[in-house]
Amino acid sequence: MTKLWQKEGITVSEKIEKFTVGRDRELDLQLAPFDVQGNLAHARMLAEIGLLTTTELAGLEAALKEIYTSIETGEFEIEEGVEDVHSQVELLLTRKLGDVGKKIHSGRSRNDQVLVDLKLFSRSRLKEVVTLTTRLFEVLVARAEEHKNDLLPGYTHLQIAMPSSFGLWFGAYAEGLLDDLVQLQAAYRLANRNPLGSGAGYGSSFPLDRQLTTDLLGFEGLHVNVVYAQMSRGRTEQAVLNAISSLAATVSRLAMDVCLYNSQNFGFLVLPDDMTTGSSIMPHKKNPDVAELLRAKCNRMKALPAEITMVLSNLPSGYHRDMQLLKEILMPALSEIIECLDVAIYMLEHVKVNTGLLEDKKYDLLFSVERVNELVMQQVPFRDAYKQVGVEIANGSYRASRNLDHTHIGSIGNLQLDLLKLRLTDELTKFNFEKADRAIGALLGN
Amino acid sequence: MTKLWQKEGITVSEKIEKFTVGRDRELDLQLAPFDVQGNLAHARMLAEIGLLTTTELAGLEAALKEIYTSIETGEFEIEEGVEDVHSQVELLLTRKLGDVGKKIHSGRSRNDQVLVDLKLFSRSRLKEVVTLTTRLFEVLVARAEEHKNDLLPGYTHLQIAMPSSFGLWFGAYAEGLLDDLVQLQAAYRLANRNPLGSGAGYGSSFPLDRQLTTDLLGFEGLHVNVVYAQMSRGRTEQAVLNAISSLAATVSRLAMDVCLYNSQNFGFLVLPDDMTTGSSIMPHKKNPDVAELLRAKCNRMKALPAEITMVLSNLPSGYHRDMQLLKEILMPALSEIIECLDVAIYMLEHVKVNTGLLEDKKYDLLFSVERVNELVMQQVPFRDAYKQVGVEIANGSYRASRNLDHTHIGSIGNLQLDLLKLRLTDELTKFNFEKADRAIGALLGN
Amino acid sequence: MTKLWQKEGITVSEKIEKFTVGRDRELDLQLAPFDVQGNLAHARMLAEIGLLTTTELAGLEAALKEIYTSIETGEFEIEEGVEDVHSQVELLLTRKLGDVGKKIHSGRSRNDQVLVDLKLFSRSRLKEVVTLTTRLFEVLVARAEEHKNDLLPGYTHLQIAMPSSFGLWFGAYAEGLLDDLVQLQAAYRLANRNPLGSGAGYGSSFPLDRQLTTDLLGFEGLHVNVVYAQMSRGRTEQAVLNAISSLAATVSRLAMDVCLYNSQNFGFLVLPDDMTTGSSIMPHKKNPDVAELLRAKCNRMKALPAEITMVLSNLPSGYHRDMQLLKEILMPALSEIIECLDVAIYMLEHVKVNTGLLEDKKYDLLFSVERVNELVMQQVPFRDAYKQVGVEIANGSYRASRNLDHTHIGSIGNLQLDLLKLRLTDELTKFNFEKADRAIGALLGN
Amino acid sequence: MTKLWQKEGITVSEKIEKFTVGRDRELDLQLAPFDVQGNLAHARMLAEIGLLTTTELAGLEAALKEIYTSIETGEFEIEEGVEDVHSQVELLLTRKLGDVGKKIHSGRSRNDQVLVDLKLFSRSRLKEVVTLTTRLFEVLVARAEEHKNDLLPGYTHLQIAMPSSFGLWFGAYAEGLLDDLVQLQAAYRLANRNPLGSGAGYGSSFPLDRQLTTDLLGFEGLHVNVVYAQMSRGRTEQAVLNAISSLAATVSRLAMDVCLYNSQNFGFLVLPDDMTTGSSIMPHKKNPDVAELLRAKCNRMKALPAEITMVLSNLPSGYHRDMQLLKEILMPALSEIIECLDVAIYMLEHVKVNTGLLEDKKYDLLFSVERVNELVMQQVPFRDAYKQVGVEIANGSYRASRNLDHTHIGSIGNLQLDLLKLRLTDELTKFNFEKADRAIGALLGN
Repeated sequence: MTKLWQKEGITVSEKIEKFTVGRDRELDLQLAPFDVQGNLAHARMLAEIGLLTTTELAGLEAALKEIYTSIETGEFEIEEGVEDVHSQVELLLTRKLGDVGKKIHSGRSRNDQVLVDLKLFSRSRLKEVVTLTTRLFEVLVARAEEHKNDLLPGYTHLQIAMPSSFGLWFGAYAEGLLDDLVQLQAAYRLANRNPLGSGAGYGSSFPLDRQLTTDLLGFEGLHVNVVYAQMSRGRTEQAVLNAISSLAATVSRLAMDVCLYNSQNFGFLVLPDDMTTGSSIMPHKKNPDVAELLRAKCNRMKALPAEITMVLSNLPSGYHRDMQLLKEILMPALSEIIECLDVAIYMLEHVKVNTGLLEDKKYDLLFSVERVNELVMQQVPFRDAYKQVGVEIANGSYRASRNLDHTHIGSIGNLQLDLLKLRLTDELTKFNFEKADRAIGALLGN
Repeated sequence: MTKLWQKEGITVSEKIEKFTVGRDRELDLQLAPFDVQGNLAHARMLAEIGLLTTTELAGLEAALKEIYTSIETGEFEIEEGVEDVHSQVELLLTRKLGDVGKKIHSGRSRNDQVLVDLKLFSRSRLKEVVTLTTRLFEVLVARAEEHKNDLLPGYTHLQIAMPSSFGLWFGAYAEGLLDDLVQLQAAYRLANRNPLGSGAGYGSSFPLDRQLTTDLLGFEGLHVNVVYAQMSRGRTEQAVLNAISSLAATVSRLAMDVCLYNSQNFGFLVLPDDMTTGSSIMPHKKNPDVAELLRAKCNRMKALPAEITMVLSNLPSGYHRDMQLLKEILMPALSEIIECLDVAIYMLEHVKVNTGLLEDKKYDLLFSVERVNELVMQQVPFRDAYKQVGVEIANGSYRASRNLDHTHIGSIGNLQLDLLKLRLTDELTKFNFEKADRAIGALLGN
Repeated sequence: MTKLWQKEGITVSEKIEKFTVGRDRELDLQLAPFDVQGNLAHARMLAEIGLLTTTELAGLEAALKEIYTSIETGEFEIEEGVEDVHSQVELLLTRKLGDVGKKIHSGRSRNDQVLVDLKLFSRSRLKEVVTLTTRLFEVLVARAEEHKNDLLPGYTHLQIAMPSSFGLWFGAYAEGLLDDLVQLQAAYRLANRNPLGSGAGYGSSFPLDRQLTTDLLGFEGLHVNVVYAQMSRGRTEQAVLNAISSLAATVSRLAMDVCLYNSQNFGFLVLPDDMTTGSSIMPHKKNPDVAELLRAKCNRMKALPAEITMVLSNLPSGYHRDMQLLKEILMPALSEIIECLDVAIYMLEHVKVNTGLLEDKKYDLLFSVERVNELVMQQVPFRDAYKQVGVEIANGSYRASRNLDHTHIGSIGNLQLDLLKLRLTDELTKFNFEKADRAIGALLGN
Repeated sequence: MTKLWQKEGITVSEKIEKFTVGRDRELDLQLAPFDVQGNLAHARMLAEIGLLTTTELAGLEAALKEIYTSIETGEFEIEEGVEDVHSQVELLLTRKLGDVGKKIHSGRSRNDQVLVDLKLFSRSRLKEVVTLTTRLFEVLVARAEEHKNDLLPGYTHLQIAMPSSFGLWFGAYAEGLLDDLVQLQAAYRLANRNPLGSGAGYGSSFPLDRQLTTDLLGFEGLHVNVVYAQMSRGRTEQAVLNAISSLAATVSRLAMDVCLYNSQNFGFLVLPDDMTTGSSIMPHKKNPDVAELLRAKCNRMKALPAEITMVLSNLPSGYHRDMQLLKEILMPALSEIIECLDVAIYMLEHVKVNTGLLEDKKYDLLFSVERVNELVMQQVPFRDAYKQVGVEIANGSYRASRNLDHTHIGSIGNLQLDLLKLRLTDELTKFNFEKADRAIGALLGN
């Protein structure tokens, strides 16, 4: 009798069961700690409004913390025949506490229970993502500082354009991550609202104290309207995947540059041996498979928001079982971006930079704008100077002057890495991770 | 001699010209006021660092303001044979001021010029979007207040579930818009950074004062690194379209509800006559075409982020002409969401609500949870009460009690519309539109 | 020494290994039988051109067939530390046959090896898909025949429009599947071309007999050009997913109709108890979860072509490791559509139809066109008759005449199910599955 | 009184009108010739079943042919206040013929009228696409033949791999187009079915002869079931866009190769001057803008199938106004692919190939597999030969042997262009364009 809604005399065939349960039992394991956190807050609130006695609450809290420990030690499992993590937790409580266990679902539905689990889960994983993004930022800034004087050809249209530097190149991606943090904040704010108390999407006739669970779980605020709380399912996932997708775009572009610059025709970068692989037929190959897979995995993640959209498009308001499928899109994506960031950090720490690149004569034309500007400084109007240098190049009289003196903010000679670091601190502060951490710590009695 | 980069003796065939110019001349008209704003700031900065004299600056400022006026009066046009708005403005300046006009492009490339235009354009259009979103929020809150006592069947899985109300339904969408504002803030922040001075993506040897143009244009800050400033092309468009897409999802879902609730099989809503159309063969039809097109247009917008992604995927760093195409995706989308919001406001103001819906016997089962909760209040454990009511329904002894007493935050009896209004104010403040408005006003000498 | 390309003295860290291998070892098990088929054909060809002796070939064939048997019995596995199925098979051959095993990779690369595996795999799974699609077609036609006289309200714009029937409704989806078969044919044709002999994408200096392997494996023809053969990676996957996506769209729309028609507000269909589930708080619920998940899973599949596109966009020609990731998109999708078709067949077999629906007065207006046509038959010009009935409806004098006499092809009274069945046979013939089956049978010595 | 469904006393505001009409009046002009073709067939059929007299038919045919001529000469227009092309044609007929004009809409709805227009339109545009694809194929084959002996480095993982040739490279894309034709066939077959007679999606009580209109319009067959005929809306567009998207992927990848090979770091190709543009600040630039825009426009088209999917997802069966929007996606896409093919043909005709590339020492390692195969031919088992050459490369004793003798089908020395040409003929035959051309010619009395 493990399916809560199962009615007497109806058997659910094996096949249908497999189809409906899907990957839930596997994915739900990741939700387990958050389900317990939600249960703890809900129980405290039920006691506060008189639906549980102090003794009942004490029993539930002890049992829930025991379950939490079993999750941390890896002993917790969803038993054969139990549908999901919510049922498993309720089953354990009922086994241990009898009727008291049966009371915990008062004023709650599985709909708001899974909602709160997913909010807490997303909040927690986003924090990990932010931590790794910060680490990647730091590596990029360190490499930019290290190579601020190593020049690199700058391209537009894949054509040789103007002088750049490894300092600029590493620094550019560092700054890109700061804007990714802005997208992550937007996702975090949506994940950081309390849906508990919305029930199946239409609230409850119990006098639930929703502000109390909001405080206990350290949320920024409530999803106030119960219909909207339910409507946030899918929206939260979408916002998280949009933010991940933005970050993935940064990493995939970086990986594309690495693959290209590592090609013999560019020869700007060398990957460490343990990041390259050989060929089954060409004995000379050192292929940048890791960078390619980084690129591919990040590109693939960029399609996930569309996947969610296609599932949700044109569904009227109110819960639909379709939303269960969103877990299969959201949860692996969070693991994947975390893995990709980890590998990107390793790659950026170890990639070697070739120096002296611009001494090659084929890069002479990179300096044509320097020549134009030289003339402008001698009072030739810009548009005329531009034409004059065009003529010099055409008739072969152009000589590349390799003296570079770029001084403005953000240019080769003035990377302003400290300014970027200051902004990092500023963006991190906006997440206010401490609030959630403190509340959860208190709830678990740490 | 209108194409700035055209070389002697090379003719560009008509067909290729049409292919490369695309919709630029048409779309660029929308960029014109922002191109002049960018020119004004750039000229002031060139004077500050000694590349223009005070007299030259005065001439340029006067000429630019004249152009601005001609844009406002609708007289400005991109002449036949002129490639884009940037060339047109430079052409007008050179016609009027001779050599001084030729100087304005010093320390700038069309790459950072179009970047700054698009930033200013996006910032301005996003403000319009936010204004209309606010108006839609207000209409929804007003309708929620008006109909807070009008009950509506609540559905889950498209099955009759629990009692809801028009107050809850209107209010839910209002709250949804608040979370859309969070996404719009993330887009706005990315649009609100100054790329000017990054040139073709590799900066300049002139001692440009990039902080000055940042202040003059009222940006929140700089895109510091010049390589990154260029890399923000595409990212900004993506962020804006992600935010629009979030808003479009809210509106399309609302429109789906309206279409469904307006069906004779639901009969919850009536659309005003001027929002319905007839059929060419069925004389009885009043079709909700406006709501359907609202739904469809908004759904279509949800695909635009993927469109941008497909254009940009795997392009290495540095400018590529591919980015020109992003204008054709971004600019019409901003017009479209503005039009959709406008129509949505009209629809929500005029839609009529049918009352007394729950008196119909077919909605009896909506009240089954009320009966369960009644038993819980009599100390029956929740899980046992649930089973007992299941039996009552099965054997026909269940009686719907239509007394509803939902009191918790966000429930039928306690919509907390004021809380939502407070949050609106809070979210609007975060945009800090005044800063940009003040700066642009000062720049234009208003 | 299990990684073929591993060089002395280079260690590949655990983490990088996990990242690069990904889900390959798990997914490759599905490729195993096809890898053996490809090996058998390749070996026969090498013997034909003198790179293997008759004895060596005999040894290889025996060993390969033994491996094939071990795959069929489920004993085959990819050993710990072995990178993929290709390496595992080569390892088994070398263990058993020594130097002869080392010869089988002559004139081949893992690139064309995995290509041929994926072609054979796709061909085989597409046949399963076609078989299930045929079965679903047959069920739909049978239900259409059974309910050809049971009327159903027909909707446009979700508004009551004209009379329809369950015969029309079931039959419509049956016919939709026929057009899906056309898309499946296009995919099958692309999957049914031989890439073997293209090596790493640049062919071989061995005098490979590519026509021989084409014949041995029963392909329709060759991917002639070796560079193109490699370029077909990704294209094949895309074509397969486009076809699946078309089929998924048919099934998801059908599932949407089922969910809607099963809602109490429509009440047209009843799902069997084992396809519905209950609620954790509402004791009266019978939710159509199976139909909802069918809808959601099929909708999700519709996003997969975009996923592939995002990975491949802007990759220049030649193999990239990115393509490995396509297996993770293609292979689960084929399993998923097969599962969905299976569940859809079950659902369509068991769904119950409510009869006598149009007797309800609320459907009176469905018959307004009948009244118009009646007048047209009495020589009133269509446009005037249309207006007259409009007036009758407005002033309340309209009376619904429930006599229906639709006789033209495809109308309520003339479903033409036999015509559809004939077309099914015609479309199935175009696949010519027998050719592949015969060749593979011969190759395996059956 | 130009809106057919407009009722007395209801005014439709300007804004709503603009919103609902959208781009219809502009796009509908492209549908005009096809609307007349559909009208001619429908009128002939109405006469055949006695709903029009012979005289009435003669009048209608004359008037319709007159309209057709006015479309061909560019005089036809949709008048101010007329909603769409269907209304305009009916208006012209009624103006000219009075009551007879009012009869033509008998047994038809705008729903099946626009369906048949879109089928005929798609069929016609797809023929143009196929014609241009054939031309591009021919250019590629000619360039492959011309450059079959000009070697090119072959890359995998963007790393130098094995020798390739321009013959192989051009030929690969030619063959790719053949597989695109297979996708186009699938789209064409779906476009080539007659929906006429399905009315608003529920057929008609008139004894329509649907086979007659099928024959008169030269369709391959009928959409038999009337509910399905309506359901084909969206599906047809999707199939067409999937096929276009496949073709666009081929062209965009070709354009990516061109951009990369034209970069100074590769230097394989030179674009003609009229396909390059300059920079506004760098006087030396010759940017491959045309190739870049080709790439971008084609990449963008790859997102269109997802756009359609998002609009249609989860819409239940039956017409919805949402479908009107599909015209805005389909019709410009067909124009765009036609333009892109045109430009691609021009580019491929004029791109210049650099020869003697492999003489550069940096490409020595391209020949390592040749060395391995040499050893294999001397009876060294492949896997051992592979290792030996690996050692030679590591210790510097490897010498590149530049003698290439690739003879197998599809390899450098044996391009098999004639085989590709034969397949082209074969694929073209399958479209059977003549059938449609003949029927339409007869209908128009040519």
